Amino acid sequence: MSKTEIPESFPSDPNEVFNLAVDGMGGDGAPEVVVAGLAIAAERHRNIKVLLIGDEARLLPLLAKYPKAASICTVWHTDVSVSMDMKPTSALRMRQSSMRLAMDAVASGRAQGVVSAGNSGAMLALAKIVVKTLPGISRPAMAAISPTIKGDVVMLDLGANVACDWRNLVEFAVMGEAFAKSVLGLPAPTIGLLNIGAEELKGDEKLRVAAETLRESPLAAQFHGFVEGHDITAGTTDVVVTDGFTGNVALKTGEGVLKMATTLLRRVFQRGIISRLGYLLVRPGLERMKEWLDPRRYNGAVFVGLNGVVVKSHGGTDAEGFAAAVDVAMDMVTHGFNESIRERLSHMGALLMRPQTEEACEPALPVT
Amino acid sequence: MSKTEIPESFPSDPNEVFNLAVDGMGGDGAPEVVVAGLAIAAERHRNIKVLLIGDEARLLPLLAKYPKAASICTVWHTDVSVSMDMKPTSALRMRQSSMRLAMDAVASGRAQGVVSAGNSGAMLALAKIVVKTLPGISRPAMAAISPTIKGDVVMLDLGANVACDWRNLVEFAVMGEAFAKSVLGLPAPTIGLLNIGAEELKGDEKLRVAAETLRESPLAAQFHGFVEGHDITAGTTDVVVTDGFTGNVALKTGEGVLKMATTLLRRVFQRGIISRLGYLLVRPGLERMKEWLDPRRYNGAVFVGLNGVVVKSHGGTDAEGFAAAVDVAMDMVTHGFNESIRERLSHMGALLMRPQTEEACEPALPVT
Repeated sequence: MSKTEIPESFPSDPNEVFNLAVDGMGGDGAPEVVVAGLAIAAERHRNIKVLLIGDEARLLPLLAKYPKAASICTVWHTDVSVSMDMKPTSALRMRQSSMRLAMDAVASGRAQGVVSAGNSGAMLALAKIVVKTLPGISRPAMAAISPTIKGDVVMLDLGANVACDWRNLVEFAVMGEAFAKSVLGLPAPTIGLLNIGAEELKGDEKLRVAAETLRESPLAAQFHGFVEGHDITAGTTDVVVTDGFTGNVALKTGEGVLKMATTLLRRVFQRGIISRLGYLLVRPGLERMKEWLDPRRYNGAVFVGLNGVVVKSHGGTDAEGFAAAVDVAMDMVTHGFNESIRERLSHMGALLMRPQTEEACEPALPVT
Repeated sequence: MSKTEIPESFPSDPNEVFNLAVDGMGGDGAPEVVVAGLAIAAERHRNIKVLLIGDEARLLPLLAKYPKAASICTVWHTDVSVSMDMKPTSALRMRQSSMRLAMDAVASGRAQGVVSAGNSGAMLALAKIVVKTLPGISRPAMAAISPTIKGDVVMLDLGANVACDWRNLVEFAVMGEAFAKSVLGLPAPTIGLLNIGAEELKGDEKLRVAAETLRESPLAAQFHGFVEGHDITAGTTDVVVTDGFTGNVALKTGEGVLKMATTLLRRVFQRGIISRLGYLLVRPGLERMKEWLDPRRYNGAVFVGLNGVVVKSHGGTDAEGFAAAVDVAMDMVTHGFNESIRERLSHMGALLMRPQTEEACEPALPVT
């Protein structure tokens, strides 16, 4: 089967508007959540055009229902989509899936970024193969923003790479710094390298070498040194760098603890009439707290280190969450996220050329 | 300087009573917190005798103030102690420190366990050198109990070993199971191996081999398989096994998130008169929640895999927390923690003899 073409009506001059390719069929609530999310995004971004990819028969009635979304979308039809439980290797064999076509649009330069709420393993594998790794970066990573007591923190890698060498960690620092600049709008984000307590850690050569390299690099002034697990939510640094195994465990452990606290708190407020009354009195404050901790505020994760912006929305998100993922993609595209990485790397070249003594980075997903 | 001897008055028949060696000088609040904690322990345990090691000039007046503590204690004088910021290598050179003498008492069989709120790096190093590793165990680990939505969970390793091979992980499972039996009183604790999401993880050979080995072992019925970060607080399994780097990061990240939630909640309750009133109404429930999450409930960490029970109380604990650490030591001693490990290992012998393909376990601390 020959590949379908991007509709001619989709704008081709990316200087006037920013083009995003959106996987219309990815996520638990797709396609309705996606289209409803794009309707919100249309109100927030004046300079956005969306190539919405998926089943016309399902997308067109939704665009009729959400005229705001229709005003920014061009539909690119395909009736193939990657399911949420599909293995990455199977997804890679589907050349006409909505997710694949979205990546193709970025690879061909017709879109600057892609947003999908679909299968994350498939998305990372497709991004690596189709969008490809940014020159100078050894391995893409997964980054996300989390709340802290003080503000927000960018964490990476969250699971794209199981084990990493020092060079990967240094590259993650470069990419995390660029991400904090583009999306959090910080002029000079500080960077911490996740460790288990400073100098005692003689064993971990790769952390020591990564720290040394950062101290000699143009990022030296922003490099805080080692941080520990509790520093993530304390907001000690704006960026926390770690390998994908540790980052994934830390992220999920944190989510679990927050869920436990919420569950226990709900039990407290539901115990008897007096507690229920107390709950009513503190509810406005609790709502603000919930908003602060709301994962939809910055929804999903971003694959960084690719030749284009690739944003993964949570599969179970709602329209508001999907719109937040579009916000992140637009921030990265409009604030020159990849240009910022390229510039940093050009000033770090020699530092990253030291011989590798450690094992190479192991990708978490089978990419063939 | 020749070594001092254990006072003759300290009971030498461990069949009638259980003897604990307690470092009187370890911890931020020592020696008062230690003696006050022992006064609480004296009321809880009828069959306890304590060899209290430290500076007589400071300990005797405190024992006069806490007669309950005095009723179970024999003082062994030394005026040397390990400071909280001392390097493990320096602590190892001090042969007369209160911490060292406490370990000596266990090594010579005069005490079954040791409790200290002192320097943890020094404590692990001394325990390895003096108390020594249990036969059949390659490396001791650090374990602790944390609250979950359902009950409590035992986690290990929390930082004694930076990197681990599959055999270490299997041994941690054996030790964690024995710990959950002795201290949580569970007849058949379930075990999970911390991972970042089941089968995708092709890269991590050591986790795969550890899981295979546990599935073939006498622990098979209790082995749940892989768990993820959020499973820790969900109470998916009674024991969560991981390497010391990941475990340390997970523990501290969890503590950090709980601290963030508490801080945000305090802000909610302090915002204006109405919120303060609401707080008063829900306070009894919040107190119960706080008690549930109170780290003093099971204070500190335990070094497992040694020829004796070694319990580390938090350095900053109060008397109640120190008494909880004594409870843990007594549970381990009276419920035959090490016997339980020995028995398990005797049924696993051949399984642990497979050739190692991975790098050996790296200790986190310089032990010379």
